[in-house]
Amino acid sequence: MRPKLTLKQIARELDVSVSTVSKALRDSVEISQETRQKIKAFAKLYNYKPNNIALSLKNRKSKTIGIILPEIVHDFFATVIGGIEEVANKRGYNAIICLSNNSFDREVMNMEMLANGSTDGFILSVAKETQQKEDYHHLKEVINQGMPVVLFDRIVEEINCDKVIIDDAAGAKKAVQHLLDTGCRKIALLTTVDYISVGKLRTQGYREALEQNGVAVQEELILKIEDVDHSEEEIIDFITSSDIDAVFAVNEQFGASAVKAILGKGLKVPEDVSVIGFSDGELSKRFIPALTSINQHGAEIGARAAELLIDRLEQPLEKEETYQTQIVETSLVKRDSTRKK
Amino acid sequence: MRPKLTLKQIARELDVSVSTVSKALRDSVEISQETRQKIKAFAKLYNYKPNNIALSLKNRKSKTIGIILPEIVHDFFATVIGGIEEVANKRGYNAIICLSNNSFDREVMNMEMLANGSTDGFILSVAKETQQKEDYHHLKEVINQGMPVVLFDRIVEEINCDKVIIDDAAGAKKAVQHLLDTGCRKIALLTTVDYISVGKLRTQGYREALEQNGVAVQEELILKIEDVDHSEEEIIDFITSSDIDAVFAVNEQFGASAVKAILGKGLKVPEDVSVIGFSDGELSKRFIPALTSINQHGAEIGARAAELLIDRLEQPLEKEETYQTQIVETSLVKRDSTRKK
Repeated sequence: MRPKLTLKQIARELDVSVSTVSKALRDSVEISQETRQKIKAFAKLYNYKPNNIALSLKNRKSKTIGIILPEIVHDFFATVIGGIEEVANKRGYNAIICLSNNSFDREVMNMEMLANGSTDGFILSVAKETQQKEDYHHLKEVINQGMPVVLFDRIVEEINCDKVIIDDAAGAKKAVQHLLDTGCRKIALLTTVDYISVGKLRTQGYREALEQNGVAVQEELILKIEDVDHSEEEIIDFITSSDIDAVFAVNEQFGASAVKAILGKGLKVPEDVSVIGFSDGELSKRFIPALTSINQHGAEIGARAAELLIDRLEQPLEKEETYQTQIVETSLVKRDSTRKK
Repeated sequence: MRPKLTLKQIARELDVSVSTVSKALRDSVEISQETRQKIKAFAKLYNYKPNNIALSLKNRKSKTIGIILPEIVHDFFATVIGGIEEVANKRGYNAIICLSNNSFDREVMNMEMLANGSTDGFILSVAKETQQKEDYHHLKEVINQGMPVVLFDRIVEEINCDKVIIDDAAGAKKAVQHLLDTGCRKIALLTTVDYISVGKLRTQGYREALEQNGVAVQEELILKIEDVDHSEEEIIDFITSSDIDAVFAVNEQFGASAVKAILGKGLKVPEDVSVIGFSDGELSKRFIPALTSINQHGAEIGARAAELLIDRLEQPLEKEETYQTQIVETSLVKRDSTRKK
């Protein structure tokens, strides 16, 4: 049996782009009548069977959005899903969620499964392991085949697609500026390892805020946490042995652990040590003291990602494809874990 | 055009059950050779096209489990998903998650979408609105068509399928017994409205524990919360105006709000008022004081549901279908919000 002909092979054979082949087989007016006829004749001659991705692309009517997330234990992703579903439902789309559990393989498998006719496009936040490996072939593949992808939060710079991010560095600067403005000087940073794009950007914002205010960055006050599951012990050890008057934590779990560590030292929050978190979820709101936080506006991120994806699914094919990166501005939510000005 | 013939119509026409028709068309040896031939001939005569559900059932090879949940903001459902995925992945299955957001319509739509060839079977916790309406036609329909369903947590008694539940009433009794054993007598109950099956069962356990210990149930100490989104204000009002020495909350969010209300009255937890929660998530663990809780073992529930579903998908069709209800036992996790004995 002859191996199955792919869009890519037709493209190579006829010296045109995959997207031209894909569009020609869909009878797009973007492609000249002549080229369309040539491509269709070739496909017919070699008995080309569109694979499932191309099929779904051709018919584009599953009216379903595939969401692939690294995890959902954190409120942030739950609120993003809420935002996606609200827009999707309003515009007549369903949403299907798959979890990568931060595994590269699971992310690839989920993507393959959903690209198999179940969904029209993807909204995705990249797995930790994928960022570590820097292997993005699965994203490139679906995009090349004409399925739109919108990345959010943990994005990949080099992938050419629509993106929704927050101003991570600027958000971190806001947090640290608030600590500086309320009299703190010895500010610890609880962050993640650098290959997590958001952790890196928030660390950058922390450095910038200190530098712009003439406060020297003390490397010994920066804790980079690799094993998030056992972060509490690590944070308690770190805070117990550090001389600090404030903590900036890149998520609310680290923030809650910081409060516990500070109280454990016999100090008061915020009188002795202020604490500010990032990602403003239920834990921040319900905690005692309620945590001052940088709100990432997850619902807004989700809503914008859904609008971008559905717009692209419904845009006339003639339109030139230009991608945009939308930045959702973070905001400071003052609560009881930081001092008043 | 003649309307499409369904499995149900063939069954009615030939005076056999839907499952017999379904099995005959799948060539099950459970059905006699003669009946199989008759049914297949009839189906062929009337040009019967299996619909997507039947098709997926016939081929049973999406190797994907559909999970439909009321919400995911709570840790409980996140841990259940974790348990399902672990077993599913080990046994070569993927999982797809859809959210009903507690809406009946969305639950029905999600089910229709996923039954459309994307999944082999369902693991489902019923939406609040579905329990209120008591309309379960969508569940009955997929089960009748041969797609297995496993219900968990918010189950429906009258639906004949596999179920995984916790001993809600017994769990609640454990919680209240612990409060009684540590010297509490004026125990408030923060629960949900009665049409939520788990809220009802936990309320029943609360009553039983008190009665068995010779403590009269005081109706004015029971708060039934309808609007969970604004529960905190309601809980604060209730606790501020009640004379109590303990609180049993049917979830951890209510538990956290109770602590806030008690501290707001100038009282101490647990010295003046003990607090015990249900559903042992991140909030309970990270809260200060850490909340004593009834652990629902969400991962165990998910794992058992996945085992039941995959066993049913892979069992030889000859086997008589008998359904089981597995009960996962809750356990008391003592932390800092209740007094020591």
